[in-house]
Amino acid sequence: MESDRLEAFSDGVFAVAITLLALDLAVPGPEAHHSLAFKLQQHWPAYAAFIVSFLTIGIIWVNHHTLFKNFARIDRPLLFLNLMLLFFVVCIPFATSTFAAYLAGGRFDASVAGAIYEGVFVGMSVSFANLFWWSIRHEHLKIALTPAVARTAMIRFGIGNVAYIAAVGVAFISPQASLAISAIVAIYYMFEQTPTPRTAPASDDNLA
Amino acid sequence: MESDRLEAFSDGVFAVAITLLALDLAVPGPEAHHSLAFKLQQHWPAYAAFIVSFLTIGIIWVNHHTLFKNFARIDRPLLFLNLMLLFFVVCIPFATSTFAAYLAGGRFDASVAGAIYEGVFVGMSVSFANLFWWSIRHEHLKIALTPAVARTAMIRFGIGNVAYIAAVGVAFISPQASLAISAIVAIYYMFEQTPTPRTAPASDDNLA
Amino acid sequence: MESDRLEAFSDGVFAVAITLLALDLAVPGPEAHHSLAFKLQQHWPAYAAFIVSFLTIGIIWVNHHTLFKNFARIDRPLLFLNLMLLFFVVCIPFATSTFAAYLAGGRFDASVAGAIYEGVFVGMSVSFANLFWWSIRHEHLKIALTPAVARTAMIRFGIGNVAYIAAVGVAFISPQASLAISAIVAIYYMFEQTPTPRTAPASDDNLA
Amino acid sequence: MESDRLEAFSDGVFAVAITLLALDLAVPGPEAHHSLAFKLQQHWPAYAAFIVSFLTIGIIWVNHHTLFKNFARIDRPLLFLNLMLLFFVVCIPFATSTFAAYLAGGRFDASVAGAIYEGVFVGMSVSFANLFWWSIRHEHLKIALTPAVARTAMIRFGIGNVAYIAAVGVAFISPQASLAISAIVAIYYMFEQTPTPRTAPASDDNLA
Repeated sequence: MESDRLEAFSDGVFAVAITLLALDLAVPGPEAHHSLAFKLQQHWPAYAAFIVSFLTIGIIWVNHHTLFKNFARIDRPLLFLNLMLLFFVVCIPFATSTFAAYLAGGRFDASVAGAIYEGVFVGMSVSFANLFWWSIRHEHLKIALTPAVARTAMIRFGIGNVAYIAAVGVAFISPQASLAISAIVAIYYMFEQTPTPRTAPASDDNLA
Repeated sequence: MESDRLEAFSDGVFAVAITLLALDLAVPGPEAHHSLAFKLQQHWPAYAAFIVSFLTIGIIWVNHHTLFKNFARIDRPLLFLNLMLLFFVVCIPFATSTFAAYLAGGRFDASVAGAIYEGVFVGMSVSFANLFWWSIRHEHLKIALTPAVARTAMIRFGIGNVAYIAAVGVAFISPQASLAISAIVAIYYMFEQTPTPRTAPASDDNLA
Repeated sequence: MESDRLEAFSDGVFAVAITLLALDLAVPGPEAHHSLAFKLQQHWPAYAAFIVSFLTIGIIWVNHHTLFKNFARIDRPLLFLNLMLLFFVVCIPFATSTFAAYLAGGRFDASVAGAIYEGVFVGMSVSFANLFWWSIRHEHLKIALTPAVARTAMIRFGIGNVAYIAAVGVAFISPQASLAISAIVAIYYMFEQTPTPRTAPASDDNLA
Repeated sequence: MESDRLEAFSDGVFAVAITLLALDLAVPGPEAHHSLAFKLQQHWPAYAAFIVSFLTIGIIWVNHHTLFKNFARIDRPLLFLNLMLLFFVVCIPFATSTFAAYLAGGRFDASVAGAIYEGVFVGMSVSFANLFWWSIRHEHLKIALTPAVARTAMIRFGIGNVAYIAAVGVAFISPQASLAISAIVAIYYMFEQTPTPRTAPASDDNLA
C-alpha cells in the first residue's frame, strides 16, 4: 500500500494539468469585426494541440497506473524520479498554449514553439523510461519481469523517446509535421501498452 | 479494488472542471461608468450557464460514482472509454464560458456558441452511454443486470442523448431555449438514476 | 466505505477552491508609476478577504471531515445535499475576488460585493446544516446522537447561519464590518467543533 | 487510517499549487516586434523561479508523505497546523509569479518581491517544523523517536528555517542571491530527509 499516496498526488497533478489544457480553447469575447465561427476557425492550432496533449497526458496516466499497481515498494529515489516525470507533465499546458499561439504565426517562431513542445515530451518520456528502468533494476516490482520482457519494454520506450527527439528536429523543417508525429506517438501508445509482470510468467512471445 | 485509481483520477478531473466553471463569474473591476449591480445584471448568461453546467457535471459525477462502485474489474478499453468521457468533461468550462460570452450577443454567434455547448453535452452523454454499454456487454459488473433492467437503462441514456442532440438544433432557432433544454435534462437525471444491479435481482418492475 | 469517493471528490473541490483563492493576490507587473510595495499596500482588501476565505474553506473542510467519518451510509439525497454545499464552496473564489476588487472602491459597489460575499457564506452554512440535519434524521450515522447533543449541534449551526445573514445586512452599513463578522465566525468555528457521536454516549454535559 | 483524508486533501492542494506554478511560464502571443526566442530569453526569471518553487513544493510533499505515514492518530490541533502549512503552500504560486515579474525589474521592487518569496518559504518551513514538533510532543507517532533522533530532526528543520530567514535579508542585498539560497535549500532537503521512527530503533548514528 506504500504507493497509494504517490499515486494520489500524481493523479492530482495529471488531473489538474489535463483540465488546465482546455483553458486555452477560449477565444476572445464578442466584438464587431469577426464572427465567433471565424474566430474558432482561426483558432484551429489550439484545438489540434489540445487533442494531442490531452491524449498524451491521458496515456501517460494509463501507463503510470499500469506500472504502479505492480509496485511492491516505493523508495526515496523513486519519489524523485516520479517528481521528475511530474515536472514535465506540469509543463505540458504551458508548452501546448505556446505552440498553439505560435503555430500559425511566423515560421521561425512556430519552429521554436514546436521544439519546446516536443522537448517537453522528450523530457516526459525519458522520465517515464527512467522510472521503469529503476523499478526493474532495484526490484521494486511484485512480480519480476523476465529479461526478454524487460528488453521488449525498454525497446518500446526507446521508440517513443526517439520519435519525440526526431520531432524536435522536424519542428525546424515543419512545425505541423512535428505535431503530427506526437499525435502518431500518442496513438501508438494507446495500442502498445507497458508490459506488466502479470503477462511475464506465461510467455514472452505474446508481448513480442 | 482495481477501479480505485481510475475513480481517483476521474474525481480529480471532475473536481477541477467544476471549480474552474466559477472563474467565469467574475466581472471586470471597478470603473467609473457602471455600477457593480449593473455589470452583474448584464452578466446574467454567465450565471445561468454556470448553474446548468455545475448541475450537469455534478450529476455525471453522481452517476459515475453509482456505475463504478459496481465494477468488478477495469480493462484497458474501459480506461480509454473513461478518458473519452473526461475529454468532454474537460471541455465543459470552455463551452460554458463561450456560451456565456456570446449568449446575449449577436444572434448567429449565440447560436454557434449554443451548438458548441450542447455538442459537448452530446459527446459527454454518448461517452457515458458507451461506458455503460461496454460494462454490460463485457461483464465487468459485480452483479449482472437482467436484460429488462439493461434495456431500461439504455432507454434512459437514449433520452438524454436525443435531448442533447435536439438542443444542438434548437440552438439555431433559440439559444436560450437550448440552454433551457440542458437545464431540464439535468433536473431529469437528478431524479432518474442509472439503474444498478443492486436493484436488479429483486424485480424489474420497480425500475420500469 | 461507501463515503470514500464522496469525500475524495469533495476534497478535490475544497483543494482546488482554496488554491484558486490565491490567484487574486497577484498585482499588475512592473510599470514606471508605482513601486511594488505601494501596489501591495493598495491591494490590502485582497489579502484580508483571502485570509478570511482561506480560513472559512479550511474550517468547512475540517468539519466536513469530522462529520463524514461518522457516516455509515450515503444515499442519493445526501449526494445532492453535498453537491449543494460544494456549489457554494465553488463560488467562494469568485465572491472573494469580487469583494476584494470593490471593497476599497465606491460605497454602494462595496456593499453589493460584501452582500454577495456574505450571501455565499449563508448558502454554504445553510447547506452544511442541511447535510447535518439529514444525517441525524435519516440515521446515517454510525453512532446516533443523543437528542441533547443534536440540539446543541443545531444551535451551533444556527449561530453561524444567523451571523452570516446579519453580515449580509451589515454589508450595506459597512462592508468592512461585514468582512470582520465572517472573520469572527471563522475563528468561532475553529474552536467550536461539530459535535460527533463519539462523545455522545459519554455525557451531554461536556458538549453543552 | 485516520490520516487518510488529511493526506488526500493536502495532496490535492500540493497538486493544484505545483501545477498552477507553470501558468506563469507563458509569454505574450505573437506580435511584430520580438521573436518568441527573444521573449523566452527575457522571461528567464520565470523559469528560474518556477524550477525552485517546483522543487520546493515537491520536497515538502515528499517530506509530508514521509511524516504522515508514521502518524497513528490525527487530532484537531494537527488539522489546523496542517492547514497553516497549506496556507503557505497556496501562497507559493503568487509569490513565485510576483518574484518572476519583478526580479529583472527595478532594484527595490526586486528586493521586495524576493523578501515576499522567501518570507512565504519561512512560513512554510516554520509550519512544517511545528507539525513535526507537535507530533513528537503529543505522541501521535506509531513508533516514538528517540530523543537523539528528535534532536537531530529539529536541528535539520532549524537549518532550513534559518536559511530562509537569511534569504529574506539577502533579498535586499541581491534578489538573485536569495533565489540561489532557496535553490540550495531545496537541493539540501532532497538529500537530507526527515528522520522517521523506522530508523530510530536501530541506531542514532546512521542519522547523525
